[in-house]
Parts: sequence; structure tokens; C-alpha cells
Amino acid sequence: MDAAATAEQVARVVATVESLGLQAHPIPGAQRTAIGITGNRGSVEAAAFENLPGVIEVIPVSAPYKLVSREAKRENSVISIRGVPVGGPALTVIAGPCAVESEAQAIEIGRRVRAAGAHLYRGGAFKPRTSPYSFQGLGEKGLKILSKVRAETGLGIVTEVLDTETAELVAEHADCLQVGARNMQNFSLLKKVGRIKKPVLLKRGMSATIEELLLSAEYLLAEGNYDVILCERGVRTFADHTRNTLDLSAIPYVQRISHLPILVDPSHGTGKRQKVLPLSRAAIAVGADGLLIEVHHQPEAALSDGPQALLPEMFEQLIGEIRALAPVVGRVL
Amino acid sequence: MDAAATAEQVARVVATVESLGLQAHPIPGAQRTAIGITGNRGSVEAAAFENLPGVIEVIPVSAPYKLVSREAKRENSVISIRGVPVGGPALTVIAGPCAVESEAQAIEIGRRVRAAGAHLYRGGAFKPRTSPYSFQGLGEKGLKILSKVRAETGLGIVTEVLDTETAELVAEHADCLQVGARNMQNFSLLKKVGRIKKPVLLKRGMSATIEELLLSAEYLLAEGNYDVILCERGVRTFADHTRNTLDLSAIPYVQRISHLPILVDPSHGTGKRQKVLPLSRAAIAVGADGLLIEVHHQPEAALSDGPQALLPEMFEQLIGEIRALAPVVGRVL
Amino acid sequence: MDAAATAEQVARVVATVESLGLQAHPIPGAQRTAIGITGNRGSVEAAAFENLPGVIEVIPVSAPYKLVSREAKRENSVISIRGVPVGGPALTVIAGPCAVESEAQAIEIGRRVRAAGAHLYRGGAFKPRTSPYSFQGLGEKGLKILSKVRAETGLGIVTEVLDTETAELVAEHADCLQVGARNMQNFSLLKKVGRIKKPVLLKRGMSATIEELLLSAEYLLAEGNYDVILCERGVRTFADHTRNTLDLSAIPYVQRISHLPILVDPSHGTGKRQKVLPLSRAAIAVGADGLLIEVHHQPEAALSDGPQALLPEMFEQLIGEIRALAPVVGRVL
Amino acid sequence: MDAAATAEQVARVVATVESLGLQAHPIPGAQRTAIGITGNRGSVEAAAFENLPGVIEVIPVSAPYKLVSREAKRENSVISIRGVPVGGPALTVIAGPCAVESEAQAIEIGRRVRAAGAHLYRGGAFKPRTSPYSFQGLGEKGLKILSKVRAETGLGIVTEVLDTETAELVAEHADCLQVGARNMQNFSLLKKVGRIKKPVLLKRGMSATIEELLLSAEYLLAEGNYDVILCERGVRTFADHTRNTLDLSAIPYVQRISHLPILVDPSHGTGKRQKVLPLSRAAIAVGADGLLIEVHHQPEAALSDGPQALLPEMFEQLIGEIRALAPVVGRVL
Repeated sequence: MDAAATAEQVARVVATVESLGLQAHPIPGAQRTAIGITGNRGSVEAAAFENLPGVIEVIPVSAPYKLVSREAKRENSVISIRGVPVGGPALTVIAGPCAVESEAQAIEIGRRVRAAGAHLYRGGAFKPRTSPYSFQGLGEKGLKILSKVRAETGLGIVTEVLDTETAELVAEHADCLQVGARNMQNFSLLKKVGRIKKPVLLKRGMSATIEELLLSAEYLLAEGNYDVILCERGVRTFADHTRNTLDLSAIPYVQRISHLPILVDPSHGTGKRQKVLPLSRAAIAVGADGLLIEVHHQPEAALSDGPQALLPEMFEQLIGEIRALAPVVGRVL
Repeated sequence: MDAAATAEQVARVVATVESLGLQAHPIPGAQRTAIGITGNRGSVEAAAFENLPGVIEVIPVSAPYKLVSREAKRENSVISIRGVPVGGPALTVIAGPCAVESEAQAIEIGRRVRAAGAHLYRGGAFKPRTSPYSFQGLGEKGLKILSKVRAETGLGIVTEVLDTETAELVAEHADCLQVGARNMQNFSLLKKVGRIKKPVLLKRGMSATIEELLLSAEYLLAEGNYDVILCERGVRTFADHTRNTLDLSAIPYVQRISHLPILVDPSHGTGKRQKVLPLSRAAIAVGADGLLIEVHHQPEAALSDGPQALLPEMFEQLIGEIRALAPVVGRVL
Repeated sequence: MDAAATAEQVARVVATVESLGLQAHPIPGAQRTAIGITGNRGSVEAAAFENLPGVIEVIPVSAPYKLVSREAKRENSVISIRGVPVGGPALTVIAGPCAVESEAQAIEIGRRVRAAGAHLYRGGAFKPRTSPYSFQGLGEKGLKILSKVRAETGLGIVTEVLDTETAELVAEHADCLQVGARNMQNFSLLKKVGRIKKPVLLKRGMSATIEELLLSAEYLLAEGNYDVILCERGVRTFADHTRNTLDLSAIPYVQRISHLPILVDPSHGTGKRQKVLPLSRAAIAVGADGLLIEVHHQPEAALSDGPQALLPEMFEQLIGEIRALAPVVGRVL
Repeated sequence: MDAAATAEQVARVVATVESLGLQAHPIPGAQRTAIGITGNRGSVEAAAFENLPGVIEVIPVSAPYKLVSREAKRENSVISIRGVPVGGPALTVIAGPCAVESEAQAIEIGRRVRAAGAHLYRGGAFKPRTSPYSFQGLGEKGLKILSKVRAETGLGIVTEVLDTETAELVAEHADCLQVGARNMQNFSLLKKVGRIKKPVLLKRGMSATIEELLLSAEYLLAEGNYDVILCERGVRTFADHTRNTLDLSAIPYVQRISHLPILVDPSHGTGKRQKVLPLSRAAIAVGADGLLIEVHHQPEAALSDGPQALLPEMFEQLIGEIRALAPVVGRVL
């Protein structure tokens, strides 16, 4: 749509799209609104739209992903999580423990990461664990603790949603719903989360191609949730010196074909505390929109993933290094 | 220890164990000495012992999986799906289309595979698809068609369950619930399916280790559902001549440590029609308990995975070859 | 070209083709224009064209390999190693120790594998070892021992050639030169071995695609050596339950596009003694032309790869099982 | 050895080591000389050395690699290539075409990269090519052109050595011998290059673990060549959006356990021009000692790897960005 298009003009295009039995997805941008069209089997007749008032051009999208692609929307999407922008010039750092273990633990870590400069808080209440005998998270009790962390620290909450049954409960307490790597192709969950109007952090699956990641994001947008943030967290390869192989080339590749922001999780990407700092620098240098970092004040006592959690003082050092690095890549922290 | 191990060799292993701060318990047996190791919190590094003179094998006694292991149950489990045994001396062949597309299509294929010798029918009503714009299955309508296929052909029905919300609906129509590769670590689904007392076919994830596969099965058994059948369907590697790399070494490996039956799906394992027949032979030769085969009478018109579906006459040939091969590996078809 | 490609876009592709010294043949069709490319010696770099405006797809019309392909020669090649055919109806079993360690060891194992039914003897005199401090083989002394093994047992000798400098020395003693996985893309060695007129056993590299394997074979044939036998020996993946992941789908894939025989090495393919027997059966069932098996009468004392060597009595069992299996796949042993 | 140890004291330790039938490897450092000992099967009696004059301590090295490890030498090694240091505080940029194609091409690119700020020139005269029908390099003619490039530009020359037969010829023209990814485990070549006293650039193999990379470097040091520079160039995975998956976590991992410098080759690591710049920034940010960059002034006409070559103006931009980034990680360019 034209930058000066009115809401009425947008509505008229939407109505025209729907009159043809198709779905219209108005995606607001900084300067203009794009309207994605899905539901067509073949190509759509451009003439039906291009003469409507306010329409600048009709672009047929040829990629398998439509709404997530830059063909659908040229400028970067900036997603707001409780007022914190993700995807703009400012880098975003989301930090906190792997799992909420207790109110004291969660709030202590929240204070430490806020003091160090984190913008948002992460912590799992529902944990996907390889073994049924491992700690599975505190569940609803953990969600309530997360709400207290927000009340205490003012930090918005990012937490994982594991299934359709608990998705709405999680959404009551969270400011951003995380879909984990193991659930990247849990399409029922994607559809459910797509219908909840909260920002979503979608992590790349352990052996997902970029096309698969973008198509999973497409599930969310196709349900009408345009506030999607992607996250590279390492893929599974033969290499055994790290837990996963962090694929930083994914960042510029995604940014070329999609308007969605993308973060990097070097904690899962490496699985080793000493590697988190250098790979955080690398992630920002390659152009990521921010970081997802696990921090624990007592990692040796953590109920999950202790070996990859930073101590709060290491997290402060990380923030300092990223702050120095940001301007070199045209960003601010 | 080797049956011929000397007292010195035993003493050296004991000393090595103790040098690591653990306790060693040499347990003499009729033919050989076993040395138990206790005091470890996590797993013990096998490499520290397995090359010492006289050592045959280092066996982690407390495996992370309990109920699925042969330590818990020595003899093979035989699972019955509507009277058809899986895991005994008789091989089991499950065949049918990737997706139920129509009553006519589903029943036609059902008649053909039953005539050729299939024991059970497979076909998806809820389909996990990479793109939101691909055919997602007929849903409940597809389930009803599957019930008609059973009524028409007498074949028990194996069909995929995608989420906790529809699990019970699927269970009303299915004789065996399939948990697909993308859901192997959908732990909420595993818990739900574990509580439904129907046999489960659990497929290995695209980048899952065998330990992860067995721990996902452990979720099912831990909920009280012991009727679990595993399935190797190929893993994701750099190799590009097949859709996935079928990992047949998984079969004897699983069989050594678990009592659960394991099938092979060469249709997904290769993604190519011409490879299904030779890899079916290989699967039976390596010791699998049966096969999961996609068959379509009009693969070029299939709504999903047409390129890997066998024509009914190719499936007849497959049955013939497996019938000839079975006695060589001590099985019958 | 895209159906909507303009004459200028077609002309630009033609100009690009010609700028590379090739001929372009624009062939107009009912809906779109195809542009054939000829005059290329090998494959044409698709990337040179696929980003030009108007180009939809770059399709390699003739395979990059010429002499190894079935387009060049329809019927199967049968290679003779000291009178033993490889690639015909008879299966070929090559067995022996990983490394020649002493005359006594080499001859003892030679007698045992011949008695069990092996057709050819394998054993390394020059060993490629990951560490410079590991046993590197007996070198020329080992080659002389191999000649004695042949004299004693009558078995033809297959042994590895590590470099161009020792290739001729090895060829004096060997009946078949093995090029190992680590040297599959040692092109200088391939050219050298291609000029020595002895049969070559070329093993697939640890992360080689089938196209790369066939192009390495093409190096040998291009030098005039047509007696090339391929060998699948497992590829490197994330899977950790075996040393390598044996990719048996490679066998039918190679056989469809190449006339060269292909063997399977389940010893390296699995790295574990207990897996060698089932995967040998699978290899024959999938259609391989034979097996390469490591056998050692004292594997616990072996200087290399002991854990994957079969004991002679296990090798006898293997031969028995393969003998039973062969007729089922139309072969004899 | 003590920082003040004399050459005589070093010589006496060397003589003592050799008198025990072992090899001594004096490795000079900025402040002191370390003397590596190899050739021992078990542990060496420290008492034989620790009372010799000038000896500070005797450290048993437990890793499988000895001479390359930080246990053998604490401080970073700084390797000089024609006066250009690699591994110190200054970053090193090596740039040039994939292959030498003509004198005009090689010199033109040499002038451009020198003007932009490259420290050393890269370019292949002997090229390892997947297909025998691809351009194999100009061979000796190419080497002579490289000598002219050095004469014209003053830049030291890094060029690949493909085999033992041409190693000395290459060494006559090169200032640094590159061992490519495909030859990382060509142990005969490593031994040969280890005996030529020229700096070596050793690239990680396509599916090599870090342990294997370091053990290949160990081959070079064990032959007495301590001037070894490692290079991460991407590994082979399922990911298909780049040619290889650049594994930047390898850099801090190598730096923790080895004293050898390590560079990154983002040209091969990604295979795509647009990815080279962001991944170069990431490589420096993660802590690499420098970059290996392919540059071509006419990449569309390049005889190999055109799609990944930077244009000279893109290379200038890269140098500018790295210059801005270097101080943030405590380096200079």
C-alpha cells in the first residue's frame, strides 16, 4: 500500500481479497502497510487489486513462504515485547536461568541480569526433557514465579510453551511465547500459538533447514500472528567439541529473504560456558538482532543445563563486550 | 572381563576404577568375572576401561532408560495390534497410502495391500506438513474413512496422532497410534499417548540418537503403556542421494539393549520408490521385526509423498522377496 | 527461462554462456524458452546462470561423470583380481586383518579366512593413522609378508596405497590397490594409481556424496584404468551408536547410474564387532557385490581397530549366513 | 626451560632426551624455549631431566596431541610468513584468487588486494578438483606467476601443495604451504611438508573433528616443523543454505588447548559472496587470528569458485570493517 494509504483503503483491499475467497494479512510496517494474500492455489489476478485506491504494486511471491518473505514486506519487522523492540537498531538481550527452580532463585537471577543490562527475562516453567525422570519444570507454579519476577524487576518475560493444552495458561503469564527447537515442527502448537496474539520466539530445530524454519514461522503468520522472532540455537552435526554447531551463516541468509528479526542463543548453541562469550560477540558481528543467554548464580546446583549457564559476573562482561561491539555493526545496546 | 582374564588384569581394572574415586565390585561368575562400578553420579567414561587388558565390554548397568531396557525385561516384547503380533518370529508388514485422500482411494489401496499380504493398514488423516499451504489431511473425515477401510478389509489401522487435543479422537478409530518423527520429542504428546491404552508406533526423530529414541519410548512406558513399537525411518545427514539416510545399524543396536520390537520405514528412509525394495530386503536381513511401506495406486496424483509410494504390483513383488528372505534370518512372513 | 522472460533476458544468458567459451542453443517452446549448453568439458557451474534475470532452473543434462556412467557402458563391469571376479553373479568376500603385524599373524589369519571361504586377502602394510604416534604399519616389510601370505594361501592380496611415492612398490606386491576413505579425494594419488594397471578398490570418503565418489572413480578411468571397484564404508553423521553410519542406500543408487561393482565394508561401517554380521547380511540383501571384512584371531592384541575385527569363528558364521542369503537375491557364494 | 637458559643448556637437555632413544623438539617461544619429548610409549621418568641446568619443570602431556598442546607450550605461537606475523596481536589477512589463471589476472588481483590492505597473497597453482574434467590449475607455470606476483607486490605467497612429488617445487616458490581440507589426513603429505622448513597453513577437513585437526598438525610438528597455522573452513552438514557450515566455535576451542594460530576461511566456509563479509566479522569477533579471503576482479569468468570470490571493492569494504572491529577484541589490523 502507499505510505499515505488510509485505513479505509487498506480495509477495502482486504475486503476485495476476501470476496475472492482468499485470506488477507495486513502487516503494518514503519512506513507502509503490506497486505499478504494466501489461500490461492494458482496465481492471483493482479488486475483485481492494482487499481484499487492506495495500492502501489502487486508482487507475486514465488518462494514457498509468503508472509515471512521480503517479497511480501520489504522493510525489517520490529516486534515489541512489553515495549522492548526486537529487530530495530537496538540490540536485544534476553537473559535468565534455563529453568525456574524457586522464587528466590528466579528473582535473584532477575535482579542480577537486569542490573547487568538485560532487556527481557527468560526462564522455563514447562521444560522439555529428554528423559521422563529429569526435572520437568515447576509448571503453573513456575509461571506464577515468572509473574513475580516481572513485578520485581520490570523485565518482560519470555518462557516456553510446550503444548496446546497449556498454551493459554502460559500466555497469561508471559510477554513472549517461546517455541523450542524440539517443537519447531509441532504444527498443532504453531497453529495454536498463531491464534494467541502474543509475540513468539521460534527456535530453529536441531536438524531444520532454513526453509523449514521459515515455513514454521509461516504457520504462525498464516494464523494472523505477525509478531514472530526467529532464533538460531545450533544444529546437530558430527562435531563433538560443542553440544551443537552454531550456524551463524543462518543470520545473513535469513535476513536476506525474510523481514523477521533473528536472535542467537549461544548457550544452547555451544553447551559450554567458556564458549558463550566469544560466540555472543560473533553473533552480534554477523548481524543478529540480539542474544538469548542462560545465566545462573549457582550453575553447579542448577536443575538443568548448568554447564552452559554464565555466572552473573560473566554476563556483565558479555554485556560490556557487546556494548563495545554494537556501534561497529551499526547497532546500539 | 574376558573368560581368560588373569587376576592381575582384574586387579588393574579395580585399581583404575578406584583411581577415579569410584567403588569397584568384582563379581566372579561361572565363566568370567564382572566388575560392577558404583559411586558415579552420572555416566562413567567407558574409554577409561574398555582398552585395559582382559576387558571385553564396558556395560553401563544403570542405563538412563529403565523400563525399555533388557535389564528390566530379558525376553523380547511381542505387541498385538488387533491380533497381529509385532516382535515375535513372524514379520509384520504395515502398508497403505501416505495420506487418506478419499474413501475410494483409501479402500482401493486397502484391498490391494491386503491381497498382496499386508498385515496392517497405514494412512494419515492428520498430516504434519512443512508448509501451512500443503494438504493437511482430511482430519476426522479421514479417520472415519479409516474405520471403513478396516470394516472392508479386516486390516487393523495404524494412523498418526498429531496433538494432545485430537489424540482421543484418533484412538477411537485407530488400532495403533503413530507418533511421527517430528513429534518424537513432543513430550506432552508422549505423556498423553502413554495414558491411552492403545499400541504406539514411535518413529525415530530426524536427528535423534538411539538414546533419545529409547528415552522417548520410556516416556510412554513410564505412563503405563507398554505396547510400544519403535521405527527407524532415516536420519538427516549431508548425503543428498536419498531424502534421508536409513540407519540400519540402529536395528541390532536397539535389539541388544531393549526388549521392544523395531520396524523399518524404507519409504521415508529413502524417499525414492526404486530404493524401497532393496532397502526393505536389507531391513529384514539386518533383523528388523517388519516394515512400514507406503503404497499408492496413482502415486503421480498423490496429495503427499507420491515419489516414494510403491505401486501395488511393486508391493506384491516386495512381499514375495521378503517371504523368500524371511527363513534365512529365522523369521516367517 | 521463466515463461515471462524477455528477449533481452534470453540474450543475456546466451551471452554469459558464450563468455565462458561454451555454446548456447536457445530452444523456443510453446510456453517458455530452454537454453541448451554444450562444449563444456565437465559440469557447468549452475551458479553462473541461476541468478540471472528470467532464469528459473539450471538442469544438468549429461551427468558430470562420463566413463563410470551407465550412459557410457550399459552392462555391469566384472573386475578380475587374480582370477577372482568382482561384480558378476558370484559374491566376493575379502577378509583379513586391519594391519599386517607379523608374518605369523598374517599367515595364521590368511589360513583361517581361506578355510572359512574368503576369496581374497586384505591387510595393511602402510596404515593411515590419525595420530603420528600410532602404529603406522610395517611398510615394505609388511608388503613382503603379504606376498608370503599369497604364496601360502593362494589368496590374491588387497592392500592400501598411501601415496604416489610408494604406489609402485605396493603394486609389486598387491593384486588390488586399495585407496582409503581419507584419500578418496587425493587426486594426485588417483592419477598415479590410474596409470598403474592393477585393479583398484576405491573407498567412499567419510563425508563424500555419491557424485564425489563417482567423480573420484572417473579420475581412475580417465587415466585408462577401468578396473575400479567401489566400496561403501560408512559416513560421518551425528549418530553416536556406531563409529560411522553405514549408508546402504548408496548401493542401489550407484548401481543405477554406474556399471562399476560396489562392495560394503561393515567393519569400518560400524566399528563394532557385534554389528558386522547383521550389517553384512543387510549389505548382501541390498544388492552389494561383496564384502570387505576385518578378521583377527587375537583382536584384543591387535595394533589397530581390534574392536571391529571378527574372530575367525564369527567369520565362518558370517560366510554361512551369506551363503544362505545369496540365492534369495539371485547371487551365489 | 628457564627464560634465561642458554643454548648449551637446551642442547644438553636435547642430548639427554636422545640418549634415551626419544625425540626432542625444542620449540622457541617469546620468553622461553619449551622442549617437547616424543617417542615414548609410556610415561617418561621426569627425574632424568628435572635436575639438568636450565630446566624449570617437566610436564607430562596427557592429551593425544603433545607438541601442539598448551601443556607443551603455554604462550601463543607466532608464525612468521616472509616477515608477516600470524598469531600475535596483529590480525593477518591473506587474499587472492582461488586459482592462478594468468599472469595478468594474478598480478592485477595482487595489486588490488595489496592496495586494500592484505598482508599475504593466496592463489592456487595446483588445484584439487572434484572432477577430472575441471580446470586443474596451471601447475609449475602458475608457481612462476606467483613468484612474479611477489616480486611485483611484495606480498608473501601462500599456495596449496597437493602431493609429495611436487612439494619441494611448490616450496621453492611459496612462502607458506597450504595443505587443503581434502588432504588434512594425507599423512604422507603431512610428513613430507613437516620436513620442509616452510610455514604451513593446515585446513580442517570437511568432516574432521578438532582432535583430528590437531593430530594432523601434530604430524607436522613431530617432523620438526613448528610453524603451523590452522584454518577453519566449514564442515559438511545437512544444512543446504551454504556450501559448508562454518564452525566458529572451533576457534575458542582450539585456542584453549593449542598454542597454534588459527585463521578462518569464510569464502569456502560459506561458498557465497554475500555471506563472506558478515562471517568475516564474526570470525574476528570470535577471536580468530586472521582471514583467508578469495578475491577476483572478474568472478563471473573465474575458472573455479567464482560465486564465492569477493570483488576488489567488496574486499576493501571488508578490510575497513575488520579494521573497525579489531580493537574491540584487543587486536589491530
